[in-house]
Amino acid sequence: MAGAPTPAPLKIGVIGLGRAFTLMLPTFLADARIALAAASDPRDAARRQFTADFGGPTYADAAELVQDASVEVVYIASPHQHHMRHTLQAAAAGKHVLLEKPMALSLADCDAMIAACRAAGVHLIVGHCHSFDTPYLRARDLVASGQFGRLTMIQAQNYTDYLYRPRRPEELVTAEGGGAVFSQAAHQVDIVRLLAGQRLERVRCALGNWDPARPTEGAYSALLWFEGGAYASISYNGYGHFNTDEWMGWIGEMGDSKNPSAYGAARRRLQAIESAQQEASLKAARTYGGPDYVSPGIAREPRLFQHFGPIIVSCEHGDIRPMPHGLEVYADERHTFLPLEASAVPRAEVIDELLGAVSGSRPPIHTGEWARGTTEACLAMLESHRTRQDVALRHT
Amino acid sequence: MAGAPTPAPLKIGVIGLGRAFTLMLPTFLADARIALAAASDPRDAARRQFTADFGGPTYADAAELVQDASVEVVYIASPHQHHMRHTLQAAAAGKHVLLEKPMALSLADCDAMIAACRAAGVHLIVGHCHSFDTPYLRARDLVASGQFGRLTMIQAQNYTDYLYRPRRPEELVTAEGGGAVFSQAAHQVDIVRLLAGQRLERVRCALGNWDPARPTEGAYSALLWFEGGAYASISYNGYGHFNTDEWMGWIGEMGDSKNPSAYGAARRRLQAIESAQQEASLKAARTYGGPDYVSPGIAREPRLFQHFGPIIVSCEHGDIRPMPHGLEVYADERHTFLPLEASAVPRAEVIDELLGAVSGSRPPIHTGEWARGTTEACLAMLESHRTRQDVALRHT
Ligand SMILES: NC(=O)c1ccc[n+]([C@@H]2O[C@H](COP(=O)([O-])OP(=O)(O)OC[C@H]3O[C@@H](n4cnc5c(N)ncnc54)[C@H](O)[C@@H]3O)[C@@H](O)[C@H]2O)c1
Ligand SMILES: NC(=O)c1ccc[n+]([C@@H]2O[C@H](COP(=O)([O-])OP(=O)(O)OC[C@H]3O[C@@H](n4cnc5c(N)ncnc54)[C@H](O)[C@@H]3O)[C@@H](O)[C@H]2O)c1
Repeated sequence: MAGAPTPAPLKIGVIGLGRAFTLMLPTFLADARIALAAASDPRDAARRQFTADFGGPTYADAAELVQDASVEVVYIASPHQHHMRHTLQAAAAGKHVLLEKPMALSLADCDAMIAACRAAGVHLIVGHCHSFDTPYLRARDLVASGQFGRLTMIQAQNYTDYLYRPRRPEELVTAEGGGAVFSQAAHQVDIVRLLAGQRLERVRCALGNWDPARPTEGAYSALLWFEGGAYASISYNGYGHFNTDEWMGWIGEMGDSKNPSAYGAARRRLQAIESAQQEASLKAARTYGGPDYVSPGIAREPRLFQHFGPIIVSCEHGDIRPMPHGLEVYADERHTFLPLEASAVPRAEVIDELLGAVSGSRPPIHTGEWARGTTEACLAMLESHRTRQDVALRHT
Repeated sequence: MAGAPTPAPLKIGVIGLGRAFTLMLPTFLADARIALAAASDPRDAARRQFTADFGGPTYADAAELVQDASVEVVYIASPHQHHMRHTLQAAAAGKHVLLEKPMALSLADCDAMIAACRAAGVHLIVGHCHSFDTPYLRARDLVASGQFGRLTMIQAQNYTDYLYRPRRPEELVTAEGGGAVFSQAAHQVDIVRLLAGQRLERVRCALGNWDPARPTEGAYSALLWFEGGAYASISYNGYGHFNTDEWMGWIGEMGDSKNPSAYGAARRRLQAIESAQQEASLKAARTYGGPDYVSPGIAREPRLFQHFGPIIVSCEHGDIRPMPHGLEVYADERHTFLPLEASAVPRAEVIDELLGAVSGSRPPIHTGEWARGTTEACLAMLESHRTRQDVALRHT
């Protein structure tokens, strides 16, 4: 992939060539403002594929990747439990960090990561996360404009087959960072906070942990109260039955058209599997460098925007519904649709924010401080379920 | 309207010839098992229309109606604040009671009503309420059958223009029984309890009171925990913007086809109105006996079932979505649709339950004891918002 002539593309070193990386790959391939320079992964096959595809050096050990002189930004897409260590390594090497969600598994880790990046004078951007999706950013602008009055209420739901996609063992253990709260509330809470543009004050939450074969929470419902008096009601159910994409015009999370008749596919695939190890291998087989990996290729057609399920943002004088192709706006007088022009680069918003930060031209939204707020809210959701009461938030 | 020859139709005396009565009228007109015998309303015009339509005697004072020898069941559709007094009067006269929701405004009132009906040996059925709708009753049977495993979670939402329909002044004051909790949670909580078939244990709730011109809560979101471990997340927003009927195939609450292009009609109509008194007159003008009243006529075509917004009932091995024409069932293996045959008599379920109780052939579901449980949960919602904590339930 060639970079644009001016300015030189920002050179990215990847830590973790897994599923998250493959989901960012269409962006890296299509966006001429960045280039993949090097990568690290303990899996040989992934490293070989990276060299074949991009020619850059690869490292089994992330500690070496961050030292690679060609790398300007480290994209960390390793499993959650490595996020802190890899961030500290990158910062110590003076590299900017683009870190996959969730930021980390404790507030102490978040604090250490923020401090390390600040001390090193590097940017820490946490994402991709669906709160980067343009429809949410534009909905947030509409709310912030005040033209519909004060924010009153947000309703967000997402019913998916999350829990039945192939997983590593630790993804099914909440104490090790598994489960819907760390993986999915990390998106949903982030979106709701972004839309509200207000500090979160308290959280009450119920978790659902209903399949003993996959012993982590696959569902949750929560009430979140904002400082300004608005509240959000959020729900996630990843047990693979009803799918809320039906209410998004059968457009899936990645902005792709969905085929409703493929019902139950994730669960069926998993039924053929006999052990946790076999399941982890299946996940790896389909990911970068694996035998079943299919390259996304360079996106040539603009695609619909990605999304995280039906969301209704209510203000005093109108509701806004972010959709994959624009915003449905239900004002006091009339209902209108504001189309949003799709980008040929999926998730271009992530690169926009990264480049804006690195070049100093636009302060980033999804900083470490911001993402710590989402982590605090996610931890509060787990605690509220355990203690059966509201949990007050301090940083969010 | 003529009754069926055998058995003789049950004779109903109506207290309150207002909007609720007009919504039950298609049922009364179409169901040969019952007959309208007499009515009471302080409004002359309503009484005159009743005499013209049904020939039966009318009374300005409900105390006389309950003494009418022809009346076997008293249908109480007066404003909430009169429910207790009218129930006590009917019971004292030895008449069965069919009482509109909400049962009453306090648990003490509920207790007095239950005691009075028990002492008099009369049935007390609380409804119509949307938990009578066949799709919910059938979904409840599916849950209770255990074929999908344990109940795990219920998600219920309803976005309507509730707050902008013409109202009496007290309907806009929560302390007098106004607002979305007494009027709308009375449906939604009742449905959720019915579907779950389990005792409710605790409630956490946020209320939305966002239009100073209509100073009651027009919205709420709540988490409800059941004894068996399942939870429900319910939300209502009556501020007249987004309408969830879009997710019910544009079928409205009454089972009618809805025209999405009539957006904003309720709010526009209200804008032409200058005073609370004028608004109350508008409500009365459109109701029974009023100058703008249009008789529903006898329903001849089976209609789709009524509903109370999108509801997703989740069990371990399947989600059930009650719809106006049947049940969407998303099981582990496959998605199926169970059609439900519409009845020519709208809300025939209310008459089924009333007659089953009176004849002793089928124990009723919506008894006073049952409805007290819903009232307790509604009062707990108001209290939880006020005290900012969970409220434990005792009777529900
Ligand atoms: N934003 C999104 O849409 C999205 C989607 C999926 C995952 N994620 C996030 O990405 C992260 C990874 O999840 P995943 O689903 O891609 O997992 P995965 O198992 O598919 O990929 C993880 C990759 O990291 C590699 N790895 C493990 N230890 C490493 C180390 N010490 N150094 C370098 N590489 C290492 C693994 O070999 C694997 O290739 C998680 O934090 C997850 O939350 C984000
Ligand atoms: N199940 C439903 O779908 C539904 C729909 C609307 C209302 N309701 C319930 O019905 C009840 C009435 O609400 P509404 O919207 O019909 O109000 P409304 O104002 O339209 O009707 C109330 C009627 O009661 C009459 N009335 C007042 N005081 C009376 C008295 N002392 N004796 C006899 N009649 C008296 C009024 O003149 C009026 O005709 C409420 O409790 C409401 O919750 C139920």
